[in-house]
Amino acid sequence: MNIVVQKYGGSSVATPEKIKFVAKKISNRVQEGFKVIVIVSAMGKTTDKLIELAKKVSNSPHPRELDMLLTTGEQMSVALLSIALNDLNISSKSLNAFQAGIFTTGDYNNARIQKFKTDKILSLFKIYDVLVITGFQGINEDGDYTTLGRGGSDTSAVAIAAALNINCEIYSDFAGIYTFDPKIYPEAKKLKYITYDEMLEMASLGAKVLHSRAVEVAKKFNVKIYCASTFLNEEGTYVIADNIENPVVTGMSILENQTQVTITNLPLDHEKVYNIFDKIAHKGFNVDMISIININNKLNLSFTIIEEEMEHFDRYLKEALEDVDGSEINYEHGYVKVSVVGIGMKTEKGVASRFFRALRNIPIKMVTTSEIKISCLIEKQYLSEAINSITKEFEL
Amino acid sequence: MNIVVQKYGGSSVATPEKIKFVAKKISNRVQEGFKVIVIVSAMGKTTDKLIELAKKVSNSPHPRELDMLLTTGEQMSVALLSIALNDLNISSKSLNAFQAGIFTTGDYNNARIQKFKTDKILSLFKIYDVLVITGFQGINEDGDYTTLGRGGSDTSAVAIAAALNINCEIYSDFAGIYTFDPKIYPEAKKLKYITYDEMLEMASLGAKVLHSRAVEVAKKFNVKIYCASTFLNEEGTYVIADNIENPVVTGMSILENQTQVTITNLPLDHEKVYNIFDKIAHKGFNVDMISIININNKLNLSFTIIEEEMEHFDRYLKEALEDVDGSEINYEHGYVKVSVVGIGMKTEKGVASRFFRALRNIPIKMVTTSEIKISCLIEKQYLSEAINSITKEFEL
Repeated sequence: MNIVVQKYGGSSVATPEKIKFVAKKISNRVQEGFKVIVIVSAMGKTTDKLIELAKKVSNSPHPRELDMLLTTGEQMSVALLSIALNDLNISSKSLNAFQAGIFTTGDYNNARIQKFKTDKILSLFKIYDVLVITGFQGINEDGDYTTLGRGGSDTSAVAIAAALNINCEIYSDFAGIYTFDPKIYPEAKKLKYITYDEMLEMASLGAKVLHSRAVEVAKKFNVKIYCASTFLNEEGTYVIADNIENPVVTGMSILENQTQVTITNLPLDHEKVYNIFDKIAHKGFNVDMISIININNKLNLSFTIIEEEMEHFDRYLKEALEDVDGSEINYEHGYVKVSVVGIGMKTEKGVASRFFRALRNIPIKMVTTSEIKISCLIEKQYLSEAINSITKEFEL
Repeated sequence: MNIVVQKYGGSSVATPEKIKFVAKKISNRVQEGFKVIVIVSAMGKTTDKLIELAKKVSNSPHPRELDMLLTTGEQMSVALLSIALNDLNISSKSLNAFQAGIFTTGDYNNARIQKFKTDKILSLFKIYDVLVITGFQGINEDGDYTTLGRGGSDTSAVAIAAALNINCEIYSDFAGIYTFDPKIYPEAKKLKYITYDEMLEMASLGAKVLHSRAVEVAKKFNVKIYCASTFLNEEGTYVIADNIENPVVTGMSILENQTQVTITNLPLDHEKVYNIFDKIAHKGFNVDMISIININNKLNLSFTIIEEEMEHFDRYLKEALEDVDGSEINYEHGYVKVSVVGIGMKTEKGVASRFFRALRNIPIKMVTTSEIKISCLIEKQYLSEAINSITKEFEL
């Protein structure tokens, strides 16, 4: 049995017309002899609207009940898509997390998939050609709905492909993965291949094509992902283990609205610093670009967060610093993080020096690097100059 | 453990504000020491909107998938209401049909409840004070969602009350059950009591307060129903086995937009006639006021249907008559069915003659009667005259 997993994002099923288009696209795959598992997100901005509705009822909606609410979005999409498929005489059945057997950890709003019932899917394929499964949702061991966090439908698709050891196609507004965001820089080139590691760096750096947890799962289980446009008939990008083309720098990412947080005058006690991070991470904040400097036997800690998380963050940080005497917190806003990513950096020398030479006229606030990535924090006013210099230097 | 079932209709939870009001109302019941099972319909016109959406995707949406779509409406309501309850510090959990264990027959769009898992509910009440359960929906033995037909949330509430052998409170826009529709006839009186049988006749005659299947279940399991307004603080109506007040005529009902269907020249073969009805009923049409007359050894069959069902009906009727030679179909529109209902008719003589005396100046097209009901079909232009005469005669 040839099975393929296809995932369609929310904007691909935002209207009845788009749902019918997607159904036609799936039916073509059935004509080719495939059994298709389709994972669908909620229509358009449905999830946002549901959250807004919940906020009108309570300032802090009960997490378990919020997931109960949010999962209706995907159930609507799968039902409508399956209605469209049946209308084309394609034998199709939609399944929610109860029916598909998608089991997750207990964490509401941010669960992880633990198990997926492949036997049920395989037996349903004796009757149906297409199974349309709700993305983003699972059930925990109490039989309660959980959700996987924003963008979680990508993870659903890859996890199901992993369980069945098959490929995963991800369709969205993005025609593939580009060297750089084509909406900002129209000359950006579409990549034919990108490695999991590069994609992970790109995703964590703000590239929206693929959710980074999905890439992690794909890497772990070696699921080949194909990203392409739902509506345009052009070739997309393969996300795989090794990039046979192996460019030095595969792509560039921009993350705007960065706030630099600096905590000065911390005691020289690394366990205390670790505890601060632990408390913050526990609240779900993503801190980035961490640096610690020892000045006169006091530690200065500095990192970035997203500006919109500021308000909550400040409250929790103050809590985390309650038992640390004499420390001071300082916020600086309006920064942008610019990164280049490339598996080739592992072997090729001189990438960093080319990067800094390209940015020689721009004041750099902070730098962090990984094996396949260099990131720097700059002021927003220098962004377009940085983009131009880097794309020129690395021929993106 | 004192448990009560409360059901809130769609208009009672149509907005976040109304949901919060309902949550407050439920919390008062909890303060009184009750554990509360709350059954909720979809918010406002949600079900209509979902059907509309499905129709945009397919002219005849797959029934199984349509139910998958429609059940999201109630899941939204229960989640939001449970969010509102938790916000008031009431320990509450929402449950869909999978979680509550509401098992139905397999019929999509019009299923019947077969079993309800009381043990799960009772054990959850050790933790929670309120369980908010989706009305209108169940699951069949394939683990697929089914729905109970329009107004089915009433049935859900009564069935759950029956399984637990407790009372059922039904809250809606209607402040109770009236002798006659108070929206049309503001002087109509609210009844303190009405019997199941009277309510059944009233419901089938178009009274919208209670769905007739719900009353059937209530009668079968002797569930005491209390109907009252969600938002007004005034006493409602009890639906019970025996009406201690026992009026001759309890109420009047009007069913507008009736079409009289006449089929002439049918062969004198009652099995054929039965087959025609069987085929029509199988398609879900409600035919009413049936009369069969033998004219010159040919059968003339006449009955009423709702005008808006006409178009589909005509197609199916022609199909049903395919193998009946020489028969002719005739439709007459614009009729209204006026009925009076009263358990007292069983014992009290002369009700029919009082009814016909009241209508002596109005041409009556058809009459049908039951033990506790008299109905007649009249032209629409005579409706207000009929209403005035009847309410005067029977002091409604």
